[in-house]
Amino acid sequence: MRFCSLSSQNVLKIEDILKQVRIFSNSNIIEYSKLTHDSNPLHFDLERAKNAGFADLPVPGILVASLFPQIIASHFPGAVYVKQTLEFKSPVYCGEEITGEVQASNIRQMKEKYMAKFTTKCFKDGGILVIDGEATTILPTLAMNKLEGC
Amino acid sequence: MRFCSLSSQNVLKIEDILKQVRIFSNSNIIEYSKLTHDSNPLHFDLERAKNAGFADLPVPGILVASLFPQIIASHFPGAVYVKQTLEFKSPVYCGEEITGEVQASNIRQMKEKYMAKFTTKCFKDGGILVIDGEATTILPTLAMNKLEGC
Repeated sequence: MRFCSLSSQNVLKIEDILKQVRIFSNSNIIEYSKLTHDSNPLHFDLERAKNAGFADLPVPGILVASLFPQIIASHFPGAVYVKQTLEFKSPVYCGEEITGEVQASNIRQMKEKYMAKFTTKCFKDGGILVIDGEATTILPTLAMNKLEGC
Repeated sequence: MRFCSLSSQNVLKIEDILKQVRIFSNSNIIEYSKLTHDSNPLHFDLERAKNAGFADLPVPGILVASLFPQIIASHFPGAVYVKQTLEFKSPVYCGEEITGEVQASNIRQMKEKYMAKFTTKCFKDGGILVIDGEATTILPTLAMNKLEGC
């Protein structure tokens, strides 16, 4: 997994983009199903997935969306999630390179913490938008955790 | 895990409520962290959680929210998720009985499928609202899957 922050500074500012790339596997779908008890055949039965208009078995949307809190928490350990909106625009298939992008749209100080809003998007190859949305979080600090590979 | 539908009929109608109860464990938090690569210390470091105002280690919000697609897909195998909004109102701790409730608010036929909107809520003991939101899904049929224990 690659981590990256586009900010040249170590302190979060409006418009900063935090990114991460992930490729989901069939094993991840099985692990998700075991953990959540979600056995929607769409994610396991190829014929059923194709009949529903998918090219392959789609990765569960909530699993893909878990990239957003992961990106935020990896930069801001201790971040608390307040809100998340998710619009699933296009399916994600196993083996596809998915880039999660979280961009700060609003930052407000609240005593010793910060309420930060982010636009949250996932793209796949060719810049196809697969998830669009927005997250609201409470950050303990605006100082970003230094991540490997950035 | 208990499954239940409050509808006396087998076909989804507006205002029908589909419910499910789940208790999350510490193991579930570890499994979620392994699957999503989210190692937010809030979910593992009790002192950090308490300093952030939590009574115990909170269960990741997205893990709790996975109850919604699980409830919908268990009643409507093949359901496709289109949108989900999530507002995390109160923390969920391991061992607490969490009731997921999904209530049909709008149903619209689209050729041979159905676009169904649901209000999506999770409650814990004492009726405390822990997650509030709304889901939009495409259902292959309005006929509900018969579930054990209903």
